This record gives sequence, structure tokens and C-alpha cells, in this order.
Amino acid sequence: MIKRWKITLEYDGTDYYGWQKQPDVPTIQEKLETALYKFCQQEIPVQCAGRTDAGVHALAQIAHFDLDYDYETRNLGGFELMKAINGILYPEQISVLKAEHVPDDFHARFDAKTKTYMYKILNRTSFPTLDKNRAWHFKRKLNAQKMHDAAQILVGKHDFSTFRDAQCQAKTPIRTLDRINVHAEECQHSGGQEITIEAMAQSFIHHQVRNIVGTLTLIGEEKWGGKDLKDALEAKDRTKGGMTAPACGLYLKDITYQ
Amino acid sequence: MIKRWKITLEYDGTDYYGWQKQPDVPTIQEKLETALYKFCQQEIPVQCAGRTDAGVHALAQIAHFDLDYDYETRNLGGFELMKAINGILYPEQISVLKAEHVPDDFHARFDAKTKTYMYKILNRTSFPTLDKNRAWHFKRKLNAQKMHDAAQILVGKHDFSTFRDAQCQAKTPIRTLDRINVHAEECQHSGGQEITIEAMAQSFIHHQVRNIVGTLTLIGEEKWGGKDLKDALEAKDRTKGGMTAPACGLYLKDITYQ
Repeated sequence: MIKRWKITLEYDGTDYYGWQKQPDVPTIQEKLETALYKFCQQEIPVQCAGRTDAGVHALAQIAHFDLDYDYETRNLGGFELMKAINGILYPEQISVLKAEHVPDDFHARFDAKTKTYMYKILNRTSFPTLDKNRAWHFKRKLNAQKMHDAAQILVGKHDFSTFRDAQCQAKTPIRTLDRINVHAEECQHSGGQEITIEAMAQSFIHHQVRNIVGTLTLIGEEKWGGKDLKDALEAKDRTKGGMTAPACGLYLKDITYQ
Repeated sequence: MIKRWKITLEYDGTDYYGWQKQPDVPTIQEKLETALYKFCQQEIPVQCAGRTDAGVHALAQIAHFDLDYDYETRNLGGFELMKAINGILYPEQISVLKAEHVPDDFHARFDAKTKTYMYKILNRTSFPTLDKNRAWHFKRKLNAQKMHDAAQILVGKHDFSTFRDAQCQAKTPIRTLDRINVHAEECQHSGGQEITIEAMAQSFIHHQVRNIVGTLTLIGEEKWGGKDLKDALEAKDRTKGGMTAPACGLYLKDITYQ
């Protein structure tokens, strides 16, 4: 009997070349498909909701696949499937948090209603230790409130070409950004702060969040005002935006479905 | 001119054999003293507030040392000293967050008024990825509220022999625990929770926090009630306590001075 499964995955992206399978390098998709093969000796393609780049982390990536299995005789439900895959995956830095049986027409990517990414900046002089590979170390002082206020310009439906990677394969640069929040928490001991940026949309173009974050640091450093960000957006030109923030600070945080 | 310096350190303890210098293995103290030697060609002993064990982390360890230096001519203040040491330490997993000039009689250990340790438990079925080496992975469901309530028995002045490591070199097992809090946060995606335990005292005996945490899991699993914890404490006997929680979940979080 074939059942479709939706799985929720957590991973530390540091040691992987992103989600998508590529020859000769470790990727999340390849590790997962290999684990499924070891489990049931079937080649099972896995489809994810949002393909993360090399070094990007996931708190809750969603993926789906079809598994032909003798479920009843062998008494395999979601909990057992999760434990079986994890038993094979370990000690990879990829862990299945949940496995749920879903209708045959469920699609991890096309059915996603919203995706939320989180970006973490360690804004202090001293280099990170516990946050190594988990945050962007940005030394110069950032004004998070100004970043938050300016970022509201980006909310709504826009042509995001200014924040679109040259490699982007999407049909259109038009996206609707539902929400973007910049939040700072003081670090008592270092005198610095930890800044988290959360962005929610139905879908994003390639590098959109990292390009927005890189551009927002210009506001945070007070090199740019809100007007500059508005002009950059309206220019629809990648060269008018700021740098691409590094992958290590980015987390795929949440995906919702109807 | 000799000045005494107080420094605040953050470290990921995973790859070190704890604070204290030992032959042939990497330790925090050795890395720091080596960095100071490279900086000024002097052998400078560094004294810390709380010697952490192998694998234990610090969000804010405090240490002091005396440095003979031509401060005025070479214009060296706390900020410059911090940057100089970090420039040498990097890419060790040890980072100086702050360096402050203090009076010659300041003592990182003896002058400490309170120390706060944090212990982190990842309480879920799936193995950790982003929290690998940063939390104790405890699979069976824990009742954090019961752990918190029972833990209050330990607050105050007691003979903590039940929670004292056999190697402890302290003169007395009597300590005053000022505060202990157990807090749980639900993890939406895994169905599990992250439990943090914070304990504050002027000083702790060896393995006291880890032995308390290990014992509190018996309460969390409902194998023990509050009465069992009270009996264990009053027995003043290590064999009546629970297991020693692993080092990787423990963080030296804060140290205060008069």
C-alpha cells in the first residue's frame, strides 16, 4: 500500500551544500533519500517546501514523499516512521521532528500558504563561539529600531528584483511580503546585541531574505535612510541593493498549510 | 606599570578539557595564558571565578590577571586589550567579551557574590541537530512544573553531600542555594519541550548543578515525588541521589560582585 507522508525536519546546514541533490557533495535531500532507501530498498524522491542554500539551517523544513509499505502487518505509523528514519540518519545533522500521513494530493511546496524565515545577527565586537555558524557576526553597531521601521516599506506586493539573486529561476520577481519584524535583545556581558529578523510570505525569490537583511544593515548603520530603501526597491535593480547576508544566519522557521 | 584586569569570557566547552590547565590536553586556561604570552611575552597566571568541567560552556565566565605593560605610551585600555587577546585566540572557541581595569585586590573567585548556572534539556524524541553538544537530549517526557515545585526543597542552607562529586575538594558540603527555577518552553514542531534550569548561589560544590539536574529528572518522570527528593537531600549520601546530568547541557551564565 502506498501512503503519502509529510515530514518536518530540523537541520544544521553548516556541513551541507543545501537541500538539493548535486553530484559528489553532501546535501539534505541526498541524505534523506539515502536513509529512505536503507529503510525500504526503494528509490523515493523527496519534495521539500523551500530549497535552502548551503549553510542555511531549518527549524522546521517540510517535505513529502510516497512510501509503498506493508503498514498494517508491520504496524508502521508516523511515530515509528520518524524513529526509523532518525535511526538511520543519526549522526547526520538532520533530524525528523514529525511524520504525518497526508492525502495523496498533498504537496509540500505548492500547498504552502506561508513560509517564515528567521535571520540572526550577532552584533558585537567579540567573535562568536556558541553562535559560530549560527549567526552573522556584524561588528559595527546597528540601530535595530531604524531597521524595523524602514523594513515596513517592503511589506505588501512588490517587484523584488533589487533583492533577487541572478541565479533565481522563479517566473516572476513579484512577491507579497506579509510581515517583516526586526527585534533586538541586549547582551548584558558583551555590551552588544542579538538581532533577529523574521520575514513571512507565501513564497520568496532566491536570496530574497539574505539580500533584504544585507540591505537593512545599511539602515542599521545609518548609512541609508528609509527613503534610500524605497528608492532601491523601486529601482528593481540588484546593483542598487546592499550585500547578500551570509547563509549561516538564516533559518527556515515555519511553514503553514491550509 | 602593572594593572589588574577582570575579563568576561564566552566559550563553547565542547572541545576543551575544562578550565584548568592539565598536561597534553587543550583547556580554556591554557589557551588564554598562551594568548597572553603571545601578546606580551610574559607568563601570566589567570584565575577564574568558577572552574568549569570538560564540555561545560560559559556565557560569562569571569577571570583576573596582572599585566605589566607600557599602557600610556602604547595606549592600551580595556577595549584594545579585549581585541588584542581575541585576535590571538581566534579561531579557538573562546572569546573575550569585555576587559575591565580593576583594583589590585580584586579576586575573580573570592570576591564573587553570586554565581548562576543554566542547564538546558532538549526533551523530545528526535535527536538534536542545532543543539548538538549544547543541551542534554532527554527522550522520555518530563513534567517541568513538578521539577520546579520539588526543587524548591533545595533552596536555602543545606549539607549537599547527596549532590557532591567524590572528587570534590571543597572543605565543606554545606552551601546556600539562593534560587532554583525550572522553566519549560513547548517546541511546536517536535511536540517536545526545551527545559531550562537556573540555579544561583554564592558558590557550588563539584558537580552540584549536574547532580541536582539528574535527580530532578526522576521527579520529572514521576518516578519520585517531592518527599523522595527531601529524603535524598537529608541522607547526605551521593548514592541516594540521581544520575549526573551530562556536561554539554551546562552553562556558567552569570557571576556578580559586590
